[in-house]
Order: sequence, then C-alpha cells, then structure tokens
Amino acid sequence: MSTRDSEYGGNDSELTAVVHDAAEIVTVEEDGSLGIYEDAAVAVVDGKVARIGATGPVTREYPPEDARLSVDASGKAVIPGFIDSHTHALFAGDRSDEFEAKLRGKTYQEILSEGGGILRTVRAVREASDEELLSNLVSQLDTMLAHGTTTVEIKSGYGLDTETELRMLKVIARADDRHAVDVIPTFMGAHAIPENRDADDYVDEVVEEQIPAVAEQGIAQFCDVFCEEGVFSVEQSRRVLRAGKEYGMTPKVHAEELAHIGGTQLAAELGATSADHLLYATEEDVEAVVESSVVPVLLPGTAFGLGAEFADARAFLDAGAPVAVATDFNPNCYSQSMGFAASLSCVEMGMTPAEALVAGTKHAGMALDMEDGSGTLQPGTSGDIAVLDAPSYVHVPYNFGVNAVETVLKGGEVVHRV
Amino acid sequence: MSTRDSEYGGNDSELTAVVHDAAEIVTVEEDGSLGIYEDAAVAVVDGKVARIGATGPVTREYPPEDARLSVDASGKAVIPGFIDSHTHALFAGDRSDEFEAKLRGKTYQEILSEGGGILRTVRAVREASDEELLSNLVSQLDTMLAHGTTTVEIKSGYGLDTETELRMLKVIARADDRHAVDVIPTFMGAHAIPENRDADDYVDEVVEEQIPAVAEQGIAQFCDVFCEEGVFSVEQSRRVLRAGKEYGMTPKVHAEELAHIGGTQLAAELGATSADHLLYATEEDVEAVVESSVVPVLLPGTAFGLGAEFADARAFLDAGAPVAVATDFNPNCYSQSMGFAASLSCVEMGMTPAEALVAGTKHAGMALDMEDGSGTLQPGTSGDIAVLDAPSYVHVPYNFGVNAVETVLKGGEVVHRV
Ligand SMILES: [Zn+2]
Ligand SMILES: [Zn+2]
Repeated sequence: MSTRDSEYGGNDSELTAVVHDAAEIVTVEEDGSLGIYEDAAVAVVDGKVARIGATGPVTREYPPEDARLSVDASGKAVIPGFIDSHTHALFAGDRSDEFEAKLRGKTYQEILSEGGGILRTVRAVREASDEELLSNLVSQLDTMLAHGTTTVEIKSGYGLDTETELRMLKVIARADDRHAVDVIPTFMGAHAIPENRDADDYVDEVVEEQIPAVAEQGIAQFCDVFCEEGVFSVEQSRRVLRAGKEYGMTPKVHAEELAHIGGTQLAAELGATSADHLLYATEEDVEAVVESSVVPVLLPGTAFGLGAEFADARAFLDAGAPVAVATDFNPNCYSQSMGFAASLSCVEMGMTPAEALVAGTKHAGMALDMEDGSGTLQPGTSGDIAVLDAPSYVHVPYNFGVNAVETVLKGGEVVHRV
Repeated sequence: MSTRDSEYGGNDSELTAVVHDAAEIVTVEEDGSLGIYEDAAVAVVDGKVARIGATGPVTREYPPEDARLSVDASGKAVIPGFIDSHTHALFAGDRSDEFEAKLRGKTYQEILSEGGGILRTVRAVREASDEELLSNLVSQLDTMLAHGTTTVEIKSGYGLDTETELRMLKVIARADDRHAVDVIPTFMGAHAIPENRDADDYVDEVVEEQIPAVAEQGIAQFCDVFCEEGVFSVEQSRRVLRAGKEYGMTPKVHAEELAHIGGTQLAAELGATSADHLLYATEEDVEAVVESSVVPVLLPGTAFGLGAEFADARAFLDAGAPVAVATDFNPNCYSQSMGFAASLSCVEMGMTPAEALVAGTKHAGMALDMEDGSGTLQPGTSGDIAVLDAPSYVHVPYNFGVNAVETVLKGGEVVHRV
C-alpha cells in the first residue's frame, strides 16, 4: 500500500480512516456555529482530518478500500469526539451509600460528621496502591470513551498531602500513556482542607511544598482551587494560583458553586483559563468572563445531583461567552457521560443542541488551552470522532439517559465499538 | 448431563444458570422491601429461580459447572430484570428536530400547527410498512434489554384508525415472538383525536369498530385512554374503557398529566390496573388510589422533558400506594432507560434507591396485572436477571445518565452481554 499512501500528503503518509455515507457529519466552525454536511464522508490521513464533504468526492480522492479502517456510517451522524474539561475521575472507594443516605433524609453535615464526604475519598485514595488507582482510572476512561469522550481533564485533589498528590498525578500520567483517551492533568492540592488542619496552614503547605514538588516532576498543566465559602477564601485561592503560575501551571478556579464569594473575578484577575460551576455567578461575573479570556465551564450534573438551581447558561451565552459544559465526574456527581451533560444543558439550562455540542467540543478545548482546533473536526485537527447510533447529532441530548455513541475513533483509529 | 439434571427438580429438569459470587443479590419481598444477600449466588432451574443465598451453599447444591450457563458476578450487584410498564415504543420517523425547535423557542402549539407532534408520528406509522415497524421495534427492544428491561408494555395509538391500530398490535405481537424481551400489548386507539375529526365521533369509532376488531384478534391485554383536557374527557374516556372491559381488555388511564380532570377517580371507579402520569393528582386522588387496587405509575422522564413539576411520588408512597415508575418511552420522551427513570425518581421525586428499584420491578409487574411474582427474583419466578457493572444496586440511580447494567438473563438465558 506504500505507493498509494504517498498520494495522501507525503512519502510516509497513510490513509488512516475513511468514515463514509454518514447521514450527517458535524463540524464546529471558527465562529462557534455548526457545519453540517449531509450524506458525507471524512478522511483521516496520518491521524489528522484531511477532508470532509459529500461522500462521492471525498471517497473518490480517499478511497475507503485504501484506508486502514473504513467505517460505513449509513444512517448515522458523525460528530467530533467530546472533550470533558472538568473531572475528578481518579479516586478509590464507593460512595453510593451516601447518595442513598441523603435520599433517606440525612444532611450533608451529618454525612461529614460520620466521616463521609470528600475526606472519605481522601482516606481511600491514600490507602489505595498505585496499581489499584490506575486500574480504577483506566476503567473509568473506558466508560468515558464508550460515551464518546476522546480527551479528558483530570484533577488531583484526593491526596491533600505532597506524597499522595504526586502519586495521583503520576497515575494520571500513566493512564494517559496507556489509554486511547488523551488525559490532561490538573493539580488541585487545594481541593479541601485536610482533617484537623488550619486552612492557612494548609495553603502554606500547598504553596511551599506541593506546588514546587509537582512542578519539579512537570506532571500538571493546570493548577485549580476550590474557592468557596468555608473552604478556600479568595485571598487563599489567590495565593495558591499565583504560586502555581510562578511554577508554570495555568490557573483554573472552582467558582461560585455553593455561594458567591468572588472566584470568577479572581479568575479574570489572574488570567485563568476557566472558571467552573458558576451557579451563583452575577451579572458582573458574566461581564468579567466576557471581557477576559476566561472560559465559563458549566457542570449541570452537579447541580442535578445537588438539587440546586442550574447555572444561568443563557446569561453567559447571550453575552457572547464561549460556554463549555463538562461532567464534573466525581463520587458526588457520578456521571461519565457528556451526552447526559448535554441533555441537562438543553432541558435544564435552555441551551440548544447545537450550543450543547459546541460546549462539549470546541469550547471545552478552549477551557483546556488547546490551540490546535481540538473538538472542531476541521481539516488539520486530530481525527477524534464519534459515530452515533442515530441520524442526527440532536440525539445526543434528545436520547435522555442513553448513550447515543456507537463507534469512537481517536486519531483515526477505532478505539471503541459497541 | 441428563443424570445430574434430574437432581434439580424432576426428570427433565435442567440447571439453566448459576450466577455466583455476586457482591450482592437483591430480591423484592412480599411487603415491598428489599432482600439483600451478600457474597451470593442464584440458581435458575428450567428458567425459574430455584434458590438464592450465600454462594457456598447455593453452588454446593447447584454447581456452576453443571449449569448450561455460569456467570461469575464477582464485585457486581445482581437485581431483578426491569419491567417497563408504560411505553409507546412502536413508532416510525424521527422527531428530534422538534426537541431542537422547542429549545429554540418554538411553542408546542406552533409545532402542532406546522404538522408536528403526535399526528406527525401517526402519519409516519400509517405510511410505514409492517417490516419497517417491526425492525424499528426490535431495535428499540434491543436498547431496552441492554438497559436491563426484561418485560415491557407497549401501547398502540399511532394508528388512530382500525387498520393501523390492528397493524401496530400485530407488529407488537411479532416482536414479542421474536425478541427475548417479553412484550405486553395495550390497545390505545384513544391516544389522540385524529386530524379533522370530532372527538365524540372518533370515540364512536373506537368503541364500535376498533375495540371489537382488536378483541376479535385477541391481541391486546389492556385498553388505555388519554384522559386529558382538550383530548378525551372523563365521560369519553369512560365510554372507551367500559367498551374495552366488555371485550375483555383491562382498563388503564393516562390521568392528570397536563391538568387535573378526574382520570384517577375514573381509574378507581372502573377498577383500572393503573393510573399513569399523575402530575396534577390531588390528595383525593392519592386516597382513591390507596383505597382501590389502582397502581400509580409515575413517568418522570416525561416531566423532565416537559420541564414540568414532577409527580408527588412521596404523597403516594407515604400513603402506602405501590408506586411504579416507567420510562414512557416515545418520540416526545426519548428514553429507553429504566436506570435513568430511577435517577429521576431519586433526584427529582425524592424516592430512595430501594423505592426506585421496587417501582421498576415488583410494582411495575403489579401495574401489568402480573401475578406470578415477576420483578421480585423470588424462588419460583422467572429467571429475569440484570447483572450490574457495579457493586451495589444503588448504582442504578447513582450513575446519572450511564447504563449500570452489564449482563441480562431472561429465564436464565443470557440475552445481553456488554
Ligand atoms: Zn470540580
Ligand atoms: Zn403514555
């Protein structure tokens, strides 16, 4: 096949994949609108999208029979693989019993006082071996991939000490190596105040010990903080994020999730890549986001689980902000599905299916500082593709609680098939 | 194997399956509470549950190596297969564009006036061939089965004329024959008022022509009606259900979905098996349900899709009613997942995971007049079993938007495996 391969762009070029006869192929354009190609094909050369268009012309230039992989997508819609830009997917233990206890009327305070909540996960992670953590994470990545996610951000933050935070980040790096899903690591030592610690004292540790240690290993791209009433104040969060920045980690902020304390303004002040949650964001916060390059990342699964008011997605969208939506997958919001996040985006936050798709692809890439057109399916970008078992991308949010994704390609290779 | 087989209950008995080493096996007891067996096994003989208990004793009596099928459920929870007691799963066409149009601000009235809504599905069903309808339905049953549903009720009602209603019920019967999922057929000619028809005039047709024709074929167990403001009045609904009853079909009622008009009282008056939806049910309706044998069937997916208030599940539960929950799968509530219905039951209706499980199994069987202990996993009942990819049944509602089911057995045979 080497002679023909050279036709596709260079001596060593290879036609990785052709997905053809799709009912529709959906791309995301520069302005954030969708491009919809009907009866379409996409050709992937050397792992990157080479051409999208009507099946006839595309397959004449890139014959499926010459490709390493040919996918007949008749009657199916094809979309960019999802980018899940906010997760805490690495943990140990099972907290489904707390979900049940809350429904039986127990308050979150009672659960905490009985040793439950986030600090229970911290104990479980500290006790787990590296292999156990890796095996847990790989299994979660499998589930995410099956739901169409081809890139995922994962935060540390269940260690809350230098050793375990480093261990988490190393496991995240190993999972990235081993798994088809691309993993982007975020350091979040300031995820909670450890048991029997003073917040300021712990922030000292994060700033003086954890951040330098993480930076030395070069294993985190972002530094995140839980800026929240009763957790880390704006001032404490500022210290953490500034230290992270000095050490080369880009800031992200958990902001205005349970109350409004000013995390969004802090994100704008520090040039954070994203401000996440935003349930209690104000008009001024919307303005701050729009006037900065901060991407608002909304996490409707968390609001759903909490029974809280959802973030005001329309306020951000109507102001022109590049709204991203992510799963926030963690033991307290147990959902690996970007499709479910899309359903909530539409039904509960009034987003259109198009806005929800862009929020889980292009804008999610922006929330991760990806400057390679990730999540757009434009020519030149990675062949990260989800083929749906449905004729339209609208089925992603429309099919409540059901995974519309059938086949997933990463860099043009099939990495998941039902 | 025939010599050993005789040990399991009779000369021709066969050990169909042993599911062993489960983290937990969950049964539903006579009083509607859960029985939870840890480190457990279930043996299925001749398609029926023979014994459940600790793995050691059960596998000594029923050795997995003697079974036609042995399932190692280590680390996994095992639950009764779901019974989905209210669906409109047989249809043609795709209405995802209406989901999108509504999110873009179009009202339901505008969609109707442009030829959308239920009457669009009626046109598509009338135009579809039997084979197309059957193929659609089989594909939907595949999805339901993959989500753990082993028995499903399906209504006609997209024909709205004698010929097409009969055609739908015949396709439902063929799907039941062909597919592992058990299908229970309901006649619902009174699902909507056909275009350009007077309601009374159409009720005449349902009563005088459709019901006798359906009864002659013996292809519907239940007769259902959309008793709703602007659709069929209580008086019209009474006529339909009485006629159905005369012809041997047990009444069911779509009651108080969009307004309160008295469908629940009608259900109690006529001895209906169930009253379904109940978003606008009153205290008197709760009492009527409790004092009768009417099962309240709640459909939280529909309320979710409508953005409506959810039914007051707690009012029914606290009054002692056997609350069932179903998907209401239809083009306007596109969800085949009982797990998603369970998530909504817990998060949006305040049910516990245990109540949600019983609502989708035992109580759902009661909503379908099944008197064989269906949905309980008690000895003597059909070996309809779902094995979860999770250590606890709580993961069914806890894992938002993700299918927790891994393997499904129907009468002890594996009919779905991830
Ligand atoms: Zn978070
Ligand atoms: Zn219905």
